Amino acid sequence: MNDLAQTLRLRDDFPGVGDWHYLDSAATAQKPHAVIDAIARAYGPDYATVHRGVYERSANMTLAYEAARRKVAGFIGAASDGEIVYVRGATEGINLVAQCWAGTQLKAGDRILLSTLEHHSNIVPWQIVAEKVGAAIDVVPLTQDGKIDLDAMRAMITPQHRMVALAHVSNVLGSVLDVRRAADIAHMVSAKILIDGCQAVPRLAVDVAAMDCDFYVFSAHKLYGPTGIGVLWGRAELLDAMPPYQGGGSMIDKVTFEKTTYAPPPNRFEAGTPHITGVVGLSAAIDYVQGIGLDRVHAHECSLVAKARAALGGMNSIRLFGPDDSAGILSFAVEGVHPHDVGTILDETGVAIRAGHHCAQPLMRHLGVEATARASFGIYSDESDVEALVAGLERVRKIFAND
Amino acid sequence: MNDLAQTLRLRDDFPGVGDWHYLDSAATAQKPHAVIDAIARAYGPDYATVHRGVYERSANMTLAYEAARRKVAGFIGAASDGEIVYVRGATEGINLVAQCWAGTQLKAGDRILLSTLEHHSNIVPWQIVAEKVGAAIDVVPLTQDGKIDLDAMRAMITPQHRMVALAHVSNVLGSVLDVRRAADIAHMVSAKILIDGCQAVPRLAVDVAAMDCDFYVFSAHKLYGPTGIGVLWGRAELLDAMPPYQGGGSMIDKVTFEKTTYAPPPNRFEAGTPHITGVVGLSAAIDYVQGIGLDRVHAHECSLVAKARAALGGMNSIRLFGPDDSAGILSFAVEGVHPHDVGTILDETGVAIRAGHHCAQPLMRHLGVEATARASFGIYSDESDVEALVAGLERVRKIFAND
Repeated sequence: MNDLAQTLRLRDDFPGVGDWHYLDSAATAQKPHAVIDAIARAYGPDYATVHRGVYERSANMTLAYEAARRKVAGFIGAASDGEIVYVRGATEGINLVAQCWAGTQLKAGDRILLSTLEHHSNIVPWQIVAEKVGAAIDVVPLTQDGKIDLDAMRAMITPQHRMVALAHVSNVLGSVLDVRRAADIAHMVSAKILIDGCQAVPRLAVDVAAMDCDFYVFSAHKLYGPTGIGVLWGRAELLDAMPPYQGGGSMIDKVTFEKTTYAPPPNRFEAGTPHITGVVGLSAAIDYVQGIGLDRVHAHECSLVAKARAALGGMNSIRLFGPDDSAGILSFAVEGVHPHDVGTILDETGVAIRAGHHCAQPLMRHLGVEATARASFGIYSDESDVEALVAGLERVRKIFAND
Repeated sequence: MNDLAQTLRLRDDFPGVGDWHYLDSAATAQKPHAVIDAIARAYGPDYATVHRGVYERSANMTLAYEAARRKVAGFIGAASDGEIVYVRGATEGINLVAQCWAGTQLKAGDRILLSTLEHHSNIVPWQIVAEKVGAAIDVVPLTQDGKIDLDAMRAMITPQHRMVALAHVSNVLGSVLDVRRAADIAHMVSAKILIDGCQAVPRLAVDVAAMDCDFYVFSAHKLYGPTGIGVLWGRAELLDAMPPYQGGGSMIDKVTFEKTTYAPPPNRFEAGTPHITGVVGLSAAIDYVQGIGLDRVHAHECSLVAKARAALGGMNSIRLFGPDDSAGILSFAVEGVHPHDVGTILDETGVAIRAGHHCAQPLMRHLGVEATARASFGIYSDESDVEALVAGLERVRKIFAND
């Protein structure tokens, strides 16, 4: 398999890439023509609402909308499309579980287990619900190379822990979690486990059944799909027992001012007119990614990360964060240069990286930095991006050496 | 002003209309090329995340994203863009106010005032919060012709009423509320008033300052804009005092596992990567509608409704609901024919209406029906749509006369 040749072909699929060295795919991914065209069609000649129209175009849109749900279920190995809840994004998915599952199941004295490397979206919702019900939060530490330490998790988990919530792939370090092992540890004490799959779904083949987790969330915009749409997967029996999240149209069975009854999942959690074209675009994005194959994507990104780590590791005054086998994401620091300055100078050379705390302030404190520079790869990245990154960093060092 | 000529020009702006008689704009509006093209550009050569990137394209997208917020503020007469919260749609906006304002401000014994004609999205969120805090819900009745009866509201409101939530324009009857008078009545007892503007914003010039309401919500997809995005406007001092709705990235000030502090509004209520292209599309939709002028849109739709009411009112066995001066929306029943059958037969003649309870089951019970047939007009509608509706209904009557 020739990764480079494959990549050069894919690059042309993305009107937002061109000859730009876009290394911020972990923030959001560029979109292939196939996705943009599907969205434009859905807003144009195919446009209609779903679930309610008695006319043919609305019936067709409803078929597409529900076919997408089955496609998502197959994509992540869910037992049925009834377990697939459309949400705005991973953040909303976690908030929904925090409010509707933890908010009704946890009581004072119960505990929630997170890790040091979690994104704020997998910290703050648990803090809000913990304060509401009187639960406490514990934090699994990291290994020396920046993975969630499952030995430590096993040692610290107790029967008071009712919920474990962990990132499948760290958005800062690229560290990959052994979800199955984490789930087995959680289930030893009958805790439920939610996995934040935002950075995993675009980079790894995901099978929620094989991983044996209880909830899984991801956002479409990181999977080469539209903004404003994402997925919460939950085991059917857990979703069944959860109260609604938002009230409104489509989530009800019968409404009177005296008493309202609710629809079964997933509709119970999808109040209001949904993000119809977002679902259509997500479906097109899954088709696109599956057409390439996530195993190939993963191998390709690992190869680029390895090249970048080798090149940057050989440069004086560059500190690399995270494990050698990280998935598509590489954080680093240039000694004596603020990450924002690194990003600004790289931008002048046509290289887009992210600099900041990456919505992971606790991890920054753990690393002893205010911010990192982060290069993250996507399906369209290639060796020219690595070369441009290295050349740009040489320029950063020269500019600051002259200061 | 020649309405018909104007309409014929606009029809060509909408790839989803063509020679179809689309009379379901109250469910969701078709999109002009200007909106679809703006979205495609935002997903293509302009695509980047907002607020976080240190590179130029992300800075540009952030400028566009925040310029759209100022545009929305100007569009509805808000005092500042800090009062504009991007939400998934009107449903989420109402849920946000119900949870974050009513959920923290109301106590047992307090009362919420709704009306008989409200959409489920303006009923169920209040039922959920009322049950949580021990508040009660009262219902303002309708006048004989289907408007919210403000004399009755004035007679029934008490100092126990802390929140009033009413539709600006009924999604079933098209009845227009005198929002200023309703707000004055609410404020007599120091209640807050939320207005569901979903059906008003595409049909009337809206000025929240002149109307003196406290919260206003609408969805972009009914305003010729994208799905999955909408607006909550709230008075600054009310938003300031509200806790966050969802936790995650972008809504925080500082996160530690011990204590997290939150950003000021509107960011406090916008956790996670936003629906970036949705905001871009909403901005294009506002440009489009303002380019026509909402006063002209309103006059045009009123003229079409008047023509339709006159034509249908002259047909035997058709019952019209709602007031004569309704805004763009007309519900009716064909004696002896289920509304779904009406819709199905009309679909065969190229006329798309909606049949059902329109997410307003309490109003259906008030009208003494299970469902209505509803024709609703948009900026692209014209007299050919009224003629096709009338011809289709003649066919319905013939088919059922032969039964």
